[in-house]
Amino acid sequence: MTALDDVTAGSEAGGTPDGARSPAAEAAGKHLWMHFARMHGRDGDNPIPVITRGEGVHLWDDRGRRILDGLAGLFVVQAGHGRRELAEAAAKQASELAYFPVWGYATPPAAELAERLAHLAPGDLNRVFFTSGGGEAVESAWKVAKQYFKLRGRPLKHKVISRMTAYHGTPHGAMAITGLPAMKKDFEPLAPGGFRVPNTNLYRHPEFDGDAEALGRWAADRIEEAILFEGADTVAAVVLEPVQNSGGCLTAPASYFARVREICDRYDVLLVSDEVINAFGRHGHTFACEKFGYVPDLITCAKGMTSGYGPLGAMIASEKVIEPFLEPGVTFPHGYTWGGHPVSAAVALANLDLMEREGLNQRVLDHQDAFGATLAKLLDLPIVGDVRGDGYFWAVELVRDSATRETFDAADRERLVKQFLPGALLGNGLYCRPDDRGDVVIQLAPPLIAGQAEFDEMEQILRHTLTESWSLV
Amino acid sequence: MTALDDVTAGSEAGGTPDGARSPAAEAAGKHLWMHFARMHGRDGDNPIPVITRGEGVHLWDDRGRRILDGLAGLFVVQAGHGRRELAEAAAKQASELAYFPVWGYATPPAAELAERLAHLAPGDLNRVFFTSGGGEAVESAWKVAKQYFKLRGRPLKHKVISRMTAYHGTPHGAMAITGLPAMKKDFEPLAPGGFRVPNTNLYRHPEFDGDAEALGRWAADRIEEAILFEGADTVAAVVLEPVQNSGGCLTAPASYFARVREICDRYDVLLVSDEVINAFGRHGHTFACEKFGYVPDLITCAKGMTSGYGPLGAMIASEKVIEPFLEPGVTFPHGYTWGGHPVSAAVALANLDLMEREGLNQRVLDHQDAFGATLAKLLDLPIVGDVRGDGYFWAVELVRDSATRETFDAADRERLVKQFLPGALLGNGLYCRPDDRGDVVIQLAPPLIAGQAEFDEMEQILRHTLTESWSLV
Repeated sequence: MTALDDVTAGSEAGGTPDGARSPAAEAAGKHLWMHFARMHGRDGDNPIPVITRGEGVHLWDDRGRRILDGLAGLFVVQAGHGRRELAEAAAKQASELAYFPVWGYATPPAAELAERLAHLAPGDLNRVFFTSGGGEAVESAWKVAKQYFKLRGRPLKHKVISRMTAYHGTPHGAMAITGLPAMKKDFEPLAPGGFRVPNTNLYRHPEFDGDAEALGRWAADRIEEAILFEGADTVAAVVLEPVQNSGGCLTAPASYFARVREICDRYDVLLVSDEVINAFGRHGHTFACEKFGYVPDLITCAKGMTSGYGPLGAMIASEKVIEPFLEPGVTFPHGYTWGGHPVSAAVALANLDLMEREGLNQRVLDHQDAFGATLAKLLDLPIVGDVRGDGYFWAVELVRDSATRETFDAADRERLVKQFLPGALLGNGLYCRPDDRGDVVIQLAPPLIAGQAEFDEMEQILRHTLTESWSLV
Repeated sequence: MTALDDVTAGSEAGGTPDGARSPAAEAAGKHLWMHFARMHGRDGDNPIPVITRGEGVHLWDDRGRRILDGLAGLFVVQAGHGRRELAEAAAKQASELAYFPVWGYATPPAAELAERLAHLAPGDLNRVFFTSGGGEAVESAWKVAKQYFKLRGRPLKHKVISRMTAYHGTPHGAMAITGLPAMKKDFEPLAPGGFRVPNTNLYRHPEFDGDAEALGRWAADRIEEAILFEGADTVAAVVLEPVQNSGGCLTAPASYFARVREICDRYDVLLVSDEVINAFGRHGHTFACEKFGYVPDLITCAKGMTSGYGPLGAMIASEKVIEPFLEPGVTFPHGYTWGGHPVSAAVALANLDLMEREGLNQRVLDHQDAFGATLAKLLDLPIVGDVRGDGYFWAVELVRDSATRETFDAADRERLVKQFLPGALLGNGLYCRPDDRGDVVIQLAPPLIAGQAEFDEMEQILRHTLTESWSLV
């Protein structure tokens, strides 16, 4: 039983009267194995919510309800829903050449997109290895780091340092890099060689008293410490997000990244900027590392590249990294059938055109402070402990006691995050992400076309829903 | 220098005169990191071949040459290239709802496709977990097997048995299941728990004197032996393809699969049918396990599901497997952003409609023997040792000496497989796959709309090219 069941159905066409399930909900309840979701009772009294249509910043569900998309699908739909020019770019390429692999060959859209990404990427990150999506990009980054050092005569260098609570994907390699033990325990042993260091959660490091620079220095030094402890001869890469998603939009100052870059250089370790969420305008730049002033050796990206209109991911490598792979007879024995899919690549090119034409990066830079300030109004609620983020990527941390920063116990989390919030928010017209992989947060990351009206609507719905939720905990 | 450089340019529009590189080849040479391919000199005198257009069974390249697609892209383009109805299905869904995740939600195309796949799948394989592609489907199968046994109180069961030379994907888990040590060595250590048993290569087991049943009994018993040696309490799954791709289209009799099924049941081990290549008509059935008379616990699939018009993959689970995941409070903490992408799912539905309407499965059953017989004519060439396969999935094994079955040494492989064949075949108008991950084979797997005219053309081009190649080795 979720709050969804309590909501009066909207009046728009296409909806199913309350109580009845749509054919899609019926089929999904019986046959769809959802991701990261409980499956109990979904073919019974707890039907799966079905999203049927999107237009701009809005979604519609199978009850005809209009819902504000506060998460851009899943940090994906930068340009908004229903963009016909992206649909047409897909159809055009699919008619011309729907599929051909980049396994020893190229297609015009894959080649053109590789060139364009190389030009957009910072420094000399000039070489693009396409994947189907983000997890595969992280897998690729680790594999290239391992082989890179073997080609350079340092075969022991294979370990990866990443940050606590950070999510980097679910295949056995990306998951080994992921810093979420609870998500991993059922699948151990994963690929060996993943080691964790602290993240830059200022709210949960009160000893730094709000001094982000000091926390950054300390946290960067933990990376050096880990490299030295494991042995620099065994460490291949440091993987981090410019703004860490899991844990709730954890930012760090530019000085942190500068120090990490310096440490990586000192110990001959590759710095991987995992921008699967952060790239393509989420922070007002094509690649977020530019905003925070560092040049990594590898960028991993996906999601926003196509605004979600086609599955695609990429790993972008610097000249230093590609160099040993350009030697005669060398192959990187790695690939994916769908990597660089011509239709997805054509869609990505059209999406980059659209984002440039509409100035979406600048739009985010212009509106990010207002977004943060609007959400910060929620700090007057007793359940809201912190509001943090950057660009169009914000988290509202929920707490039992905002004075002591006390978080919720398991029973509260169950009631709040698992049972009440997802349905209540959707029922109140907002799709966003209540998440307790780390501390309890609600994440907001709307399409980049959103503005003050949507920020206000998000704040209002959150205010109403969180006020309601307070009686539960 | 490849044979490509020797070929006279075709006369069709869109081509680049010989010697000059097209803009796409230029961009790819500088910026595209190809999969499973050497990168040396590709921005110089060894330009990357660029495929620009497809129509039916044909491709065109940036020199305007028309090429027969003897590999359906990469075992993908079942319905052939340029199918406008699939492009239109993509555009329609992209305009309606381009993206929404199945992370606790559903969309109509994902729900409908899940239902349809469940109905098409054998036995009670009724539950569909979508992925972006095949490697992720294999990752998912291993992860579900691990958690399945933990939920059932047998937490030690986590290992996977797979077959020598078999390819199951490139993420760290799928690669641990892959039986190709040379492809793995640069990336070790991979996820622990992958163990190998012999495959069913009749040509390379001459001691069975062509008796496939006897080889099948022996090979199945090796699986039992491995389970017993590792300890049945530690083994979660056996993963195998109905017809093994890598090594060259290795078939096995139905009795082999029956015996493997029996062994898996005896030791409470899940049987995973990896049908990433074999499903969706490649062997004349939607799922190839049906053709070979077994019902697995999990099917992994991808490629042909959309005929390549959109990236998609799936893991399909039996009622037995899903059952513990339907208990209250249980989550499978696993997922992919692009899994069940609405556009790809809509394309898959349109593709299944198309395949049904055009009777492509029956077409394969009707023509498979003629395909094999046509290729078998090549056995009169001294370099051809074996022709084997099933459905529209065949391999021609090349040998130094067809009497002794002697294979090629490293230098011959370099000249033949790496340098001569890919370019020479393409130059002579045939795209297919020379492969020496196992013994040296050329693989043929055309779109399922191909018929005798294409079989003859493949045989003729292979005859010509292989005759030419004989002087090299």
